[in-house]
Order: sequence, then C-alpha cells, then structure tokens
Amino acid sequence: MSALLTRFPVFAYISKWLFLSSIVAVGAGSASALFLVSLDWVTNYREAHPWLIALLPVGGFIIGWLYLRVGQSVVGGTNLVIDTIHQAGSRIPFRLFPLVLVGTLVTHLLGGSAGREGTALQLGGSLADQLTRPFRLSPTDRRLILMAGVSAGFGSVFGTPLAGAVFGLEVLVIGRLTYEAIFPVFIAALGADYVTRWWQVGHTYYAIATVPPITPVFALYALLAGIVFGGCALLFTRITHAITDLAKRHIAYAPLRPVVGGIIVAGAMWALGTTRYSGLGIPVIVESFTQQLPPYDFIVKLLLTAITLGMGFKGGEVTPLFFIGATLGNGLSYWLPLPTGLLAGMGFVAVFAGAANTPLACMVLALELFGTACGPYAAIACVTAYLCSGSRGIYGSQLPGEGKK
Amino acid sequence: MSALLTRFPVFAYISKWLFLSSIVAVGAGSASALFLVSLDWVTNYREAHPWLIALLPVGGFIIGWLYLRVGQSVVGGTNLVIDTIHQAGSRIPFRLFPLVLVGTLVTHLLGGSAGREGTALQLGGSLADQLTRPFRLSPTDRRLILMAGVSAGFGSVFGTPLAGAVFGLEVLVIGRLTYEAIFPVFIAALGADYVTRWWQVGHTYYAIATVPPITPVFALYALLAGIVFGGCALLFTRITHAITDLAKRHIAYAPLRPVVGGIIVAGAMWALGTTRYSGLGIPVIVESFTQQLPPYDFIVKLLLTAITLGMGFKGGEVTPLFFIGATLGNGLSYWLPLPTGLLAGMGFVAVFAGAANTPLACMVLALELFGTACGPYAAIACVTAYLCSGSRGIYGSQLPGEGKK
Repeated sequence: MSALLTRFPVFAYISKWLFLSSIVAVGAGSASALFLVSLDWVTNYREAHPWLIALLPVGGFIIGWLYLRVGQSVVGGTNLVIDTIHQAGSRIPFRLFPLVLVGTLVTHLLGGSAGREGTALQLGGSLADQLTRPFRLSPTDRRLILMAGVSAGFGSVFGTPLAGAVFGLEVLVIGRLTYEAIFPVFIAALGADYVTRWWQVGHTYYAIATVPPITPVFALYALLAGIVFGGCALLFTRITHAITDLAKRHIAYAPLRPVVGGIIVAGAMWALGTTRYSGLGIPVIVESFTQQLPPYDFIVKLLLTAITLGMGFKGGEVTPLFFIGATLGNGLSYWLPLPTGLLAGMGFVAVFAGAANTPLACMVLALELFGTACGPYAAIACVTAYLCSGSRGIYGSQLPGEGKK
Repeated sequence: MSALLTRFPVFAYISKWLFLSSIVAVGAGSASALFLVSLDWVTNYREAHPWLIALLPVGGFIIGWLYLRVGQSVVGGTNLVIDTIHQAGSRIPFRLFPLVLVGTLVTHLLGGSAGREGTALQLGGSLADQLTRPFRLSPTDRRLILMAGVSAGFGSVFGTPLAGAVFGLEVLVIGRLTYEAIFPVFIAALGADYVTRWWQVGHTYYAIATVPPITPVFALYALLAGIVFGGCALLFTRITHAITDLAKRHIAYAPLRPVVGGIIVAGAMWALGTTRYSGLGIPVIVESFTQQLPPYDFIVKLLLTAITLGMGFKGGEVTPLFFIGATLGNGLSYWLPLPTGLLAGMGFVAVFAGAANTPLACMVLALELFGTACGPYAAIACVTAYLCSGSRGIYGSQLPGEGKK
C-alpha cells in the first residue's frame, strides 16, 4: 500500500485531500445548516414583528462594539480570508466564527439589508484554518484548505456545489484561474452541500418559466442587458466603497457607524412603509421571476444594502446582489423583448458576476439553479457584465489580473 | 458615438469583438455544418458498403501523399493552431482547411477509427487566421481570434457552445485559465453553434436515464471511476504518442505510414468481423447509455484509434475518446453499483477531460449534453481523471502548468 503511494504520488494526494476536504465539508456544511436555520428563524420572527426594525441602530451599536472590543483581528471578514489565501499570515482567529454569525443574525433580525454568503465564506474559511495547526499543514496546503473552506461555504449556503467550487478557484485573482486546488475545492463543496442537506436544510427553488431558443437578435438583447448588469455592479461596488470610506473618515468611533447606518436604513424603511427591502429579500427575488415589479426596486435595494454593509453591519453582498440583479432584469423587461423570468434569472447571476469578477462561477450557478436552457443567455450576460463592471470588485483583497478593459 | 467609445474603451472592445467573433462564427459554424453533413454521408455510405474498409491502406497513401506534397506546412494540425496561439508565427495556411477536410472524410469513408473535433478546431482556427491580414490584427488580437476559432469549432461540431468556449480558454495551458479571450470565445462559440443549427444540422442526443442523488458512498464510486478514466486517458495518450514515434522512426517515407496503419486497422476489423469500431462509433456510444456492452469494447477502440491517428490518418481524438470513455464506464457497471447510463456519461466526459487536460470544459459539457442532475458525478469524475492522467496530454503543444501531481 505504502509502496503504491510512493510510486504514484497522485494516490497519496487524492487520499490526503479526500480526508482533509471531508473534514472541511462536515464543518462548513454543518455551519451553513445552523446558519441557514437561524437565519430563517430570525427572518420569520422579524416579519411577524416589523417594529424590530426600529431597533436596528441599537443592533448596530452592539455589532460595532463587539467587533471593536474582541473582533479587531477579524474585522476584515471575507477579505481577511482572501488575504490569508494570498499571503500566509497568522492563523485566522476562531472568534471570526461566532462574531460573524451573531453579527449577521442581529443584522437580519433587525431588518438590515444584507446577504449571507460573506458569512458562509467566513465560517468555512475560519473552520478550515483551524486544521492548519493540528495537521501541520505546509503554507501551500494551507492555501488549498482555505480555498476548500471558501468553496464549501459558498456551495452549501446556496445549494450549488459546482458553482461554489468554481467560485473558490475564480475569486482570488481577477481574470485568472489556476487549478492547484481543483480537487480540494470540488470535494469540499460537494461534501458541504451534502452535509447541509443531510441536516434537512433546503434551498429556495427558482424557476424560469420560458426560455426561447437563442437567436442573434436575442443574443444582442442579452448583451445589452449584460452591459446594464455590469454597470449596476459597478455602481454597487463604487457606492459601497464610498460609503465605507466616508463613514471611516467622518465617524471616528467605530460602533457609531452602524448606529448612523441603522438610523438611515430603519428610517428609510419606515418612510417607504414596507419591509420588502429588509434582510435577504427572498420573496421579492422569487416574485421577480413571475410578475412585473416596480422598476425602482433594484436601486432602493442597492442603496439600502450599500448603507447597511458600508456602515458595518454583517452578512454579505451576494443575496442582495441576486435581489438587485433579478429586479433590475425584471425592470428591463419593460424595454427588452425577452421573457421577464429569463431577464430576472440573467440579472440574478450577472450583477453578481460583475461585482465579484466571477463570470464562470456565475454561469455554472445559472445552470445549477435554473437548468441548462438558459445557459447561452446567462453566459452572455455574465461575461458582458464582468467586462463592464470596472477594475475593482466587492472583494478588495482580490488581486487584479488580465481580461478587463 | 465616437466620444462614448473613447470615454468607455470597453464599448469599443465589445463592438470590435462582437463583429470579429461573428465573422468567425459564420465561417466556423458553416464549416462545421458542411463537415458534419459530409461526415454523415460518408459514414452512411461506408455502412452500406463495408468492403470499402479494404481500401483503407490506399486512402492512407492518398492522405499521406497529399500532406507530403502540399501539406508539409500544416501537418501539425491542431498543435499548429495551439502553437500559433502561444507564439505568433506565420499565418496558418488556408490549405489546412481543404486538406484536413478531405483527409478526415477519406479516413471515415474507409473506416479508420477517428474523430472530428480535431478537424473542426483546425477548420475554425484556419478560417479565423484568415482575418488577421485584412483586419491588420495585432499579435494580441490574433491570439484572441484564434482562440475564438478553436471555441467556435468545438462548440459547433458538438452542439455544446458553453463547453466549446471554456475549452478554448482551458486547452492552451495545463492547469491555468486566463480570461483575456473570454468575450470573443463565448460570442464565437454561441454564434457558430447557432449557424450550424441554422443550416439544419442537428446533433446526437444522449440521455442518462436515472441519476440517484449523490451520497458519500456514491461519490467514492465516482472517484474510483475517475481514477480508472484518468488511467485510461494516460494509456491512450502514451500509446498514441508511442505509435507516432515508432512510425516516424521506422518508416522514413511518410505516405507509407498510413498505408501500414491502414493494413493493420483494416485487418483487425476484418478479423473481428464487425464495423462497430470504424469511424466515429456514434451508435455504440448511444447504446452504451442503455445496455450492457462487451467490457473489451473500450480497449479495442483505444488501440484502433491510436493506430489510425498515430499512423497519420486525420480527424481527431475526441469522439473516439467519448466512445472509449462511455464503453469503459459501461464496463465499470459490472463492478461499481452505479447506473450503467450514468457511468457511461461520466466516462464519456472524463476520459476526454484527462486526455485533453480540460476538466472544467468537460464538466460543462456534461451539463449541456446530459442535464444538471449528473453534475456532481461528472465533476468528480472529470477532476479526478484530470489529476490521474499524467503530465502530457493528447495535444503536444499544450504548455505545462500547475495542479498536476
């Protein structure tokens, strides 16, 4: 046996990473399950008690204060995980796990507009890095296990393991993808998705009712939509970064930033008289596939999310980007003669593709979520949005690369 | 308008490549249509007149003589196209187009065991390079248009544009993928597929009857199958290269090599008393999804293809690799408790993934051809086969990269 492993190092490699990735999968998949169930619970509780949104500034203070007192080392969040993959630094503190979990749940309980993938990536990454010391992983192996953790988090929180695996390979550098982690990320993402489902935690089902066979004219419409989606991603990235910078410059005491953010967001929701922009916004995303929605939905969600996250609440950008993209696509169906559901699905994946610079993961995401019929439309939209979304994405730690004009 | 293009160079880039890629798409898509229709015709004619196989050595001489007299500059075939992408050399001579078309049709008419994607890539690549001079393309742009030609050829000959686009990005370097050509390859592949279908040329439909939800045990079976598929890809690559080298060393006069190869292949088919290993072998591939086949099918096809191509016939490796993988997967269902059709589908994509070092394109291929249910199985099989297939693939001009042990 050991002779076989020496003669064919690939078998040793496969055995080792099957083992390590499975541990990551069990950890990240269980964390996602716990997180999704809690998120569901706080979301339902908030929907039943909408007055909770008035407490958003208080929640903001708690989150800000917690991170100031015990979370200084992990305030980077997703960027900390990406940074550690690029440049082996000190171990990612385990406290990232409880802090981001509590921070995200408070954000959602009190109606902030935020997502969940950031949290899942951070849960996956921080768990994975706990294996570095007990298994005495080399810097290279640590890099691979962190990428596996990111893929496992993404794959299990959305129930899309193939997109999760490709995302883990794709997110690190803009415009380049290397395969050194290809086996660990696929095993970890598939395993984590299995573990989350094993805990009986399901995922939202989205359906695009009709997809016409693609023609050159329809392809041109998809391309135009892709340009709009890319512009929207650029707008989101710019506004979020601007709000972050502005808050840092003008509000010195960090816990006050989410307080101000909470006042603005809660005030806006009170003025709008609706909770449709709170939390993940899954019901609106589902609606966007089947009925015409107000064309301003996307911009309201964009601003509220940028304020929520830019001011220091926790969660992530991706589900709001799904919301923004799906409602923007829905709105585009006033002008572009493509089915509403198809445009919603294209926007769902393409705004995210532009904002995160991950066009291939988002194309695979479309195939996994909506089936293969929409593939050509999703591919054109994602690739075009990626080209048009500017050189800086939502993850500041992503390295610049090739392929953007 | 021109002010807009100057202010936002991305719009100039998109307009330019929409235009150039569309020309590539019309050319490569029409070439694939012509090629597929002719291939269908010669295949049917041969099936009706099996005695034609006796003429295989004569056809071999004709092909060898043609390439010796007028094809010295294009004998590299697919490798010539890949080389030109890596290192801008002289223009790919247009004669590659008629030579590889005639060579492939003669090979298939007379029953050689060969494929078609090599031909489609070369048709696409040689057509694309004809645009270099009239449009005065820079070396960078020429690289992109050649990649677009490769993707267009692959996407249109198999009716799988997304896999074709990813293939064009992935095939150049082992273990690395860059996005500089991402827009051109997707537009060219989607466009070429549309053009081929516009010519009323269809593609074979493969169906995996049942796909059980994946479990850890099933994932382990998929991994074991992936190791076998990778070993098979390694075997195919080694034997093909060995036969090529052997023929070059021992048979100085090039046109004699396919004569000897033709005698061996035709003799073997006569001795076996069947035409199931001639040509593309599509009927056997289709059967492999639904019924148990002889477990030696894959090795016979492997040897006959290695001899056919290694000795100088034309066509390509991919459809035979589909045959070899599908029948090997089918044979594995004697030992592995997974559905026969699923194992056939996994082998179909994974042996090719290993031999061409293109795991992501092959995963997307599985999604496009068989639907999303088989995705997790196909991903595990493709990634594992890629890891286990050794450092040299069927395309000698592919650059080595990272990610292989």
